[in-house]
Amino acid sequence: MNVAVLYSGGKDSSLIAIILKKMGFNPKLINVNFGIFKSYLPAMRSAESLGFDFILLELDREILEKGVDMIVKDNFPNNGIDYIHKEVIKNLSDFEYDIIADGTRRDDRVPKLTKNEIRSLEDRKNVQYINLDGFGYKTIDLIANKFFEFKKEKSNRENSDYEVEIRYLIDERGFKSCEIFPEHYQTRVVGFKNR
Amino acid sequence: MNVAVLYSGGKDSSLIAIILKKMGFNPKLINVNFGIFKSYLPAMRSAESLGFDFILLELDREILEKGVDMIVKDNFPNNGIDYIHKEVIKNLSDFEYDIIADGTRRDDRVPKLTKNEIRSLEDRKNVQYINLDGFGYKTIDLIANKFFEFKKEKSNRENSDYEVEIRYLIDERGFKSCEIFPEHYQTRVVGFKNR
Repeated sequence: MNVAVLYSGGKDSSLIAIILKKMGFNPKLINVNFGIFKSYLPAMRSAESLGFDFILLELDREILEKGVDMIVKDNFPNNGIDYIHKEVIKNLSDFEYDIIADGTRRDDRVPKLTKNEIRSLEDRKNVQYINLDGFGYKTIDLIANKFFEFKKEKSNRENSDYEVEIRYLIDERGFKSCEIFPEHYQTRVVGFKNR
Repeated sequence: MNVAVLYSGGKDSSLIAIILKKMGFNPKLINVNFGIFKSYLPAMRSAESLGFDFILLELDREILEKGVDMIVKDNFPNNGIDYIHKEVIKNLSDFEYDIIADGTRRDDRVPKLTKNEIRSLEDRKNVQYINLDGFGYKTIDLIANKFFEFKKEKSNRENSDYEVEIRYLIDERGFKSCEIFPEHYQTRVVGFKNR
């Protein structure tokens, strides 16, 4: 069984990876990069700290450009991030994975695949898609705190989600990413607790 | 941490129980009974076969009666089953559980708590609710087949979901439960594989 987890190094995607491992799979942790900035390094270090295989998936910069078009037009990140995530999953489903997973959870609004989009993906691509939709943030925090050591980091650099390259591209175009994405802290997984 | 899983002995509720166990919890498996028929026995045996603590939760027959009112009126089970499930969760949330889980999955239409109902439950009762909404039936079958031995049984007796007592009550009222619930087979978990 070939299992892929879209991985940012954060607690959500680390948790779905651990669930899959405990269910007897050997998931590969995948971080996507669009060639703008080497934002995959934190995710790579997190994956290594947990003993998972890490894969860097390089996708066409065009996807990020289109997402940023939407974000700049909306002056709000949600539609653009959602677009990028769905393109990433579409691309990933062309590889030979039996299961594709991500760490989206019940209280995430974007990125989020609708049930129809999931059904369509599974049927067209003969793949199974799973996420953390059954879990709220409180339960995810509770379980993640049992398993993982964290480091708190500013969201603009030491992090591997789409936001980092999106910010770069927005600034490159002469807009101010800090006005669209308020600065916030994110926790990155840096290893297991109690092992 | 006090963790309760609403448990029927089927693969879905067995899987969420195993996930919780692998996440370091010691969930209690709970089957609800309304005093109409001892439908909890199969779930009790399944729970024992997996080494979990089993709790029989006896609730007011009135809940089942109201659910059956709806089913007979609709000549269709969905609304009544949904009503019963939500009443059960409401009752369970009055006990001292930190987490309440059930085996409802992505492709279940009923019973199913909406996101607003979950948020309201979690806020009002200071409890965390989780389910298998992130998983489709293919992935659940795949994982359940890794872990569990099954027995296929007719859905009308050797089973512990709400349907058994609902059927009894419908028949008791002089209606034909077999016309509302088409007979089908269900798999019951009877132990672990490879152990």
